[in-house]
Amino acid sequence: MKISKINHIGVATKNVDETVKLYRDVLKLKVEAVDVVQELGLKIGFVRVGEVGIELLEPLSPDSAVGKFLAERGEGVHHICYEVENIEQAIADAKAGGARMIDEKPRKGYHGNLVAFIHPKSCSGVLTELCQPVHP
Amino acid sequence: MKISKINHIGVATKNVDETVKLYRDVLKLKVEAVDVVQELGLKIGFVRVGEVGIELLEPLSPDSAVGKFLAERGEGVHHICYEVENIEQAIADAKAGGARMIDEKPRKGYHGNLVAFIHPKSCSGVLTELCQPVHP
Repeated sequence: MKISKINHIGVATKNVDETVKLYRDVLKLKVEAVDVVQELGLKIGFVRVGEVGIELLEPLSPDSAVGKFLAERGEGVHHICYEVENIEQAIADAKAGGARMIDEKPRKGYHGNLVAFIHPKSCSGVLTELCQPVHP
Repeated sequence: MKISKINHIGVATKNVDETVKLYRDVLKLKVEAVDVVQELGLKIGFVRVGEVGIELLEPLSPDSAVGKFLAERGEGVHHICYEVENIEQAIADAKAGGARMIDEKPRKGYHGNLVAFIHPKSCSGVLTELCQPVHP
């Protein structure tokens, strides 16, 4: 796989509206959008910092992946997402390198991008996402 | 403060040499350097991804900040570091925005950069570093 950059960092939060205020007041960063994305079960605040996005993730239900993460670990960084040219190739390469995949096949993520998650055990405790943007 | 980009992401690891192998084999990323930095109490592996660095942080002692983090939370993302032009101004701005600072005054970090940490409580659970590079 060829990683060009970090596409985004996902941050789990209990309340995206409160977190938007912190990023605005403390870091003086502009939150570009806050969307409720029903199909992902998330309310997402999006901040751009240089070439990287920060996604502030509030779960719509405690049963979701981010909801469980919040219950177990509290607020904080949830995952790092790397941008790749070809997601199928990237999954094959990660597996060839010994990675335990959460997604063996690409699925649709935020903005309709093709994504696949690698288990944190294969990336020193960091939940790691691979992403092929639909609109690179 | 004016944040230009994410300078780096710090990842806490129990064994930087093992983590270097994971980043190489699974993500096909090149680890540029592994340094023992006695004054920071860390063995640091450095990976560049686009404009962002990833610092793989292995504590030299369990009593260090990263050592305690590992004991309490295990391996994973330890902090996000934002690059600013003027660290004194950035600290003043963060405080004016209501931030609880860990460092009220800048101190020397990795590569001799001037850094200051904001408490995770002021950034939705994310330990947040501000950094003015010595060699921007």
